[in-house]
Formats: sequence, C-alpha cells, structure tokens
Amino acid sequence: MAVETVASATTTSPDFGPAVALSCRECGERVPLGPVFACAVCFGPLEVAYEFSSGAAEDAEGLRKRIEAGPHNIWRYAPLLPVPADVASKPNLNPGFTKLVKADRLARELGITGGLHVKDDSGNPTHSFKDRVVAIAVEAARNFGLTTLSCSSTGNLAGAVGAAAVRAGFRSCVFIPHDLEDGKVVMAAVYGQDVVGIEGNYDDVNRFCSELIGDPIGEGWGFTNVNLRPYYGEGSKTLAYEICEQLGWRLPDNIIIPIASGSQLTKIDKGLQELIKLGLVEEKPYKIYGAQAEGCSPVSTAFKAGHDVVRPQKPNTIAKSLAIGNPADGPYVLDIARRTGGAVEDVNDDQVVDAIKLLARTEGIFAETAGGVTIGVLKKLVETGQLDPAAETVAINTGDGLKTLDAVAPTTRPSAIIRPTLDSFREAGLA
Amino acid sequence: MAVETVASATTTSPDFGPAVALSCRECGERVPLGPVFACAVCFGPLEVAYEFSSGAAEDAEGLRKRIEAGPHNIWRYAPLLPVPADVASKPNLNPGFTKLVKADRLARELGITGGLHVKDDSGNPTHSFKDRVVAIAVEAARNFGLTTLSCSSTGNLAGAVGAAAVRAGFRSCVFIPHDLEDGKVVMAAVYGQDVVGIEGNYDDVNRFCSELIGDPIGEGWGFTNVNLRPYYGEGSKTLAYEICEQLGWRLPDNIIIPIASGSQLTKIDKGLQELIKLGLVEEKPYKIYGAQAEGCSPVSTAFKAGHDVVRPQKPNTIAKSLAIGNPADGPYVLDIARRTGGAVEDVNDDQVVDAIKLLARTEGIFAETAGGVTIGVLKKLVETGQLDPAAETVAINTGDGLKTLDAVAPTTRPSAIIRPTLDSFREAGLA
Ligand SMILES: [Zn+2]
Ligand SMILES: [Zn+2]
Repeated sequence: MAVETVASATTTSPDFGPAVALSCRECGERVPLGPVFACAVCFGPLEVAYEFSSGAAEDAEGLRKRIEAGPHNIWRYAPLLPVPADVASKPNLNPGFTKLVKADRLARELGITGGLHVKDDSGNPTHSFKDRVVAIAVEAARNFGLTTLSCSSTGNLAGAVGAAAVRAGFRSCVFIPHDLEDGKVVMAAVYGQDVVGIEGNYDDVNRFCSELIGDPIGEGWGFTNVNLRPYYGEGSKTLAYEICEQLGWRLPDNIIIPIASGSQLTKIDKGLQELIKLGLVEEKPYKIYGAQAEGCSPVSTAFKAGHDVVRPQKPNTIAKSLAIGNPADGPYVLDIARRTGGAVEDVNDDQVVDAIKLLARTEGIFAETAGGVTIGVLKKLVETGQLDPAAETVAINTGDGLKTLDAVAPTTRPSAIIRPTLDSFREAGLA
Repeated sequence: MAVETVASATTTSPDFGPAVALSCRECGERVPLGPVFACAVCFGPLEVAYEFSSGAAEDAEGLRKRIEAGPHNIWRYAPLLPVPADVASKPNLNPGFTKLVKADRLARELGITGGLHVKDDSGNPTHSFKDRVVAIAVEAARNFGLTTLSCSSTGNLAGAVGAAAVRAGFRSCVFIPHDLEDGKVVMAAVYGQDVVGIEGNYDDVNRFCSELIGDPIGEGWGFTNVNLRPYYGEGSKTLAYEICEQLGWRLPDNIIIPIASGSQLTKIDKGLQELIKLGLVEEKPYKIYGAQAEGCSPVSTAFKAGHDVVRPQKPNTIAKSLAIGNPADGPYVLDIARRTGGAVEDVNDDQVVDAIKLLARTEGIFAETAGGVTIGVLKKLVETGQLDPAAETVAINTGDGLKTLDAVAPTTRPSAIIRPTLDSFREAGLA
C-alpha cells in the first residue's frame, strides 16, 4: 500500500535536523554523520556539528516561541539537536523538562543569598539524567537503521537503555559486571530484553564492548555510550537549555555539575554557548563548577594541582555512578572550569551522605549519591570561598535516592519505636 | 512592617477557592469547611462541595484556556480544587501532569484495538499518586493553621508526607508499623522529620492515630488521611482532569483504576462528572473498572456476588499498597462500577508479577505491584469479555517499580553470565 511505503521510506532516510557533520574536538577534522566516535586522524572525540539558522534578533524571538510551543520534554529543543523536526511523533520515552526547584531552605542553610535552584533530573522516566542521552542515541540508531541497542553500564544506563529500547521498538542487549547489586540487575532486566553479566569489572565490560563493535556479531548494534556517543552526549545539552528557559531565558551565574566521564559538564557548556550564539539568552559571564567524590577525584586533583592532564585513579566511593577513574572528557572539564572562573572540588563519602540528607530535609528531594556529591561540593565551595554566595546558582541532581538506598539506610532510622498508646508516645518525647 | 502584616494575614485567612462547605455523602448534611471527616448526624464520610462559576458554553471555553495557560502540575486545575487561586506560588512539591503514554505495543498484546493509554503516575515527585492527595492536604493544613503533618501509612504515604512537609515548611511526624521493609523506612525517614514505628500492624497504627486526634497532643496536627481526608481525597480528581485534557478534552470509554480504600476511584468519577457539568468535555457514556488483588478483594468479591455491602477480608497479597481489607469507599465503588456499566475484577499474585513484566517489556514502564494489579485486571477483563477491546481505554499506574523490587526480583535475572570474550558471548546464544 502506498501509505505504508511512504512511512517506511520516511523512517529509513536519515534526518538529523540541524546537524550536518561530526567534527573532531581536537583537530577539527570533519566526517559525515555516522555511527563513529573517534577521529581517524588524531583519535580525538568526535562531536556533532550544526548549521543553525541565523541568530539575528528577530529569528531568536521566533525560535524561542517555537520552543515554548513545543512538547514538555527534550523534543521542544529539536531545532538544536541531531534529530528530525518530527521527532516528537516517534515512540520514545520523552524525557526532560524536569523541575527546576527554587531551593530557598537549602540556600538559607548554605548561606547562599543570590538565589539557588536545584535541577531535579530524578523526575525522568527511569529516574536519572541518562534518559536524556539515551533518547538522542535512540533517534541516531533509528537514523542509521541499527536494530539492537546496547551499552556497557554499572546500572543506571542499562535500565535507561532497556526501557527506551522497548518503547522505541528496538531489541536491546546490555552488558553489566556480573556482581552488580540485585536492584540494579532487576531495573535492567525487567524490560524483558537481554542483560548479560560479564565476569569482570566495569573496565572488562568496556573492553568487551569495544571488541564486539569490531566483530561481525556487532553489525547493526548501537552502543549508546560507544559508537553512538557523539549523539548520546548531545542529550546533556538539554539540561542547559531547560535551566535557562526555566529561569526565564537567562543564564545563571554558577552551575554545579557532577563529573563521571565529564561529558555532561562539557555538553552543558556547549549548550549554554549555543543559546548565547543564537540570541536565546543575553551573553554574560557564568561559572561552571565540577563535582567529584574524593574516592574518585582525578579531575579535581588535576584542577587543584594546576595540571592540564588528568591522571587515572582506581575508584573507591559510594558514588558508583560517578566512579570513572579515567574520565574521557577530563581535560575539557579542566579547561571549561578554568576559562569560566569556576572550579572542580570533591567531598568524601560521609559528606556525600550528609548532603543527601541535607537536600532531603530542606527541599524534600531524595537524591542518589551523585546528587549528594553535587550538593556536598556546593556546600564546600561556599565554605571555602570558591563560590560567591551572592551570585545565582543552579545545582544539578542527576538521579534518584531510591537507586542508592544503601548509602543512607544505616543512618536513616525511625525516631522511635513505641507501643500503640498515647502514654508510650508521650514517653518517646516527640509530642 | 505593613507588607509583612499583609503577607501574614493572607497566609492565615482561610481561602479554599471554589470550595464552600463539606457535605455528607450519605445524608447530604452540610458543615463549614474544617478539619473534620465524619458527618455528625450519620457518621457518613464528608466530602468537599463547590460553587463553580456557570458552565455555559463560553465560560467553559474561558476556563479551558485558563487551565491550559496554567502550570504543568495539578495547580493548573486550581479553579476546580479546594485551594486558593494563588496556590502555585506557595511552596509545595507540585505533583501531577504526569505522562499519558500511548501504549500501542501493550494494546496489541492484549488485543485492544480502540486505543490504549497508560496514565503513568510514577512520574510524581516521590513516584506515586500519593503526592497528588498530599499536596491538597498540605494546602488545607496551611488554611487551618495546623503545624504538624501526619498520617498512618504502610510506606508510600509516609514518604509523600515527609517530602511535602519539608518543602511546604511543616513539621511532620508519621506513623508506620515497626516491621516495615527497610527501603520504605528509609524513604519515610530521609526527610529528617519524625517517623514513629508502632509495635503492631497497620490497623493498630490507624487506631492509635484516631486516639491521637482526640487527645490534646494532637492539637495542631493534620492527619492527611484522617482529619484532612475530605481535602486529601480531592487530589485524585486531578487524575480525571489530566486524562481528559491530555486526550484533547474528551472522555475515554473505559478507565481501569486500582482499589485500596476506593477513594481514588470514586474521586476520579467525581472529577469526570465535574468536567461534564462544567462543559469542559462533551457528555458521553464511560465505564469505570476497579482492580484488586485476589489476596485482598473485598470489593470485587461483592461485585461478583451482586452485593451492595462489602465484607471485610484479611489481606494477603504482594500488592501491599492496595491491602486494605475493609475499604471505606467500597460501597461507592460498587455503585459507580454498576452505574457506568463497568466491573470490579481481581488477579492473583502471579498474575500481578506477570503484568508488571508485561507493561515493562511492551512500554518500558516499570510499575509497582499496584500497577501490576491494574494491568493484570485489564488483561483479564479483555479475556473474559467484560471490556470491549474496540473501545478507548485508559489504565492508571499509580506507583514505581523501584518501590516494590522484591515482587519481580526472584524471576528477573540476567539472560546469561559470560566471560569477557566473544567466544563466550557466542556460546550464550544471544548474538
Ligand atoms: Zn582529530
Ligand atoms: Zn450524614
């Protein structure tokens, strides 16, 4: 039937919207859009290059209106992403446009007077920011005609890929270390797709995935965080877009961002730069701060030492979703923090737990350990004078406390256990 | 200072928007809006009565526009709730406007041809529909000048109250059975407010709370699900409003709703009736279906037997958030199911687990056990010819799978455990 043919042709003809090429972050080499991630010339990371329509003042107004009339998810920013204009009509988890919470009580406790917001990405479909990056990778996989979605993961990403694959109509097969916590295995496996435990650690899983991509078995496979990484990374830009739009189309003074590979931080900076270039926000200085756990702090260590290179570490922290000892985007993070006048700081595991509880008891937001790292670092930045408390600050909570219950469980107990009588309640001293 | 006096007066002068009284569902007796829940004449349940502005066609258009211009949370429906018009400016968790997911893959598996949507309330701030009801109770507590928020809970509600209290600036003290699962205790206690374990079961907790309300200790306390229950219950109406608005301001043919106390189902019906009366949707027949777990099925048992009264049961099911053996609104549920031509059905625990997995593998939505009950019952209704597959159906997922991991964990395992080699992967037969 004619209609079906048309639909099928639309699906298989690649359409990356405003994206026109991949370009090497190191040497500038340009290659056509494809499922590749490393520059053939210098092995530098490839990222998506765009040709946006003109940034003249009246065009910006039109673009802003178009965005505001869009859906309440990341697809409102389709004109700024490597996706077709009709992306919202394709089946996907539709993450994003999470709450930007005005955190007045937390600000008071931290002594911040210039205004504080928490961007709460636990509101995404599988309750972490990973849904943003996976959603873009899914559309790239659709464009390239790939049929299996995959990833190497320590948990959160595996769940996000499993859920997105199911919704978007892909097969998925994800790889995790065999000894992950039960909860994360369940979250990955409940979507009924293949989950493979690898006898080894996360590095072994990664190495295996790289081998698989080069093998005939891997044909038709899209690894969200490997061969689809340039597209995947663009998903983090939407955090920058949303923060600025939710502030009323303006830049905050400071943004605090957790660092795992460092990709999220670099892409948020990329997003802010795009908003400025397109005239969607007024240009003004802003500072980008990176947050790490002391037990995996290669970037903050390099920042404090004044180094340009990042020396790998062996991770040992409860903030497992940030435990990447050799972060690919580490040098770019250093560059951005220094260029904008920000900093990279770290906190220890006790401070992470305290910060999770601080955010919970001031704002009613239960964050995962990565969120504890971010809030803990924010506190430390204020206390050490590295962040101006009179400036307007946004901190990002990337995930949900339900995913890392063990971090707070031992020290989060009932106030009292009583018999069901008023006398017993009086004796507990809580009346 | 004059400004502060005005602000303070605004805060303490009760403003319930369009709500004008409480009226008894049984005998119609009217009493002023207050923190009371039972009719003094007949002990029937009190519910909120409104005086909405006229429902003339052009007013409906204006109201619809006002709602559409409102915030993307339940406060867009402030004109239909017992809250002041400026409610969105007060600190609250701002739940609601969760995704209405077009569930084409699930529909195909179930043989539904008339269209199927899942209203996914796991997207609320603490990941269950309880955030909706608590948000309204919080505004009532503010109106009544109460200072402590409380509840009796088996877990989800305690977490929702704790988080909302913190955000809204109340003290909270919630009561739970002392032997709850660790995860639920953590979720309740992480907000740093008082959580009291009671040596006894949920009935003992309830009894204790009723005693506390009558005691001088309980002065200034708002129990969301006891003395604030009439307001609390109104939060469930927003599910009806959102479903209809998200469908393009029209009624679906069928709605499947889980039954615990039955309040959610009765209030959704109330919400649909209001939309019709106000001219916001065109009147047409719709059917309301109730879903229970076999191990706690007092309402479906009564429905099938043709009884008007509901005989209490002793609950024994994995769907603990629905395990109310003596549901207060049971008779009203029976009435609504029969009046609309719907039904009340139940499924056993194995079917609940299967349904959780079915929803996960078709739509990428990981539901808690209550959601498994709803989807399992939907399947059974189609299979037994009680629900027309050619009609348009909406099923409600009230909570998040992360909260009831134990239900699926034993049967949700990796596809394979392999060594990190291509040969080992080939041997696993997944390539
Ligand atoms: Zn290069
Ligand atoms: Zn009465």
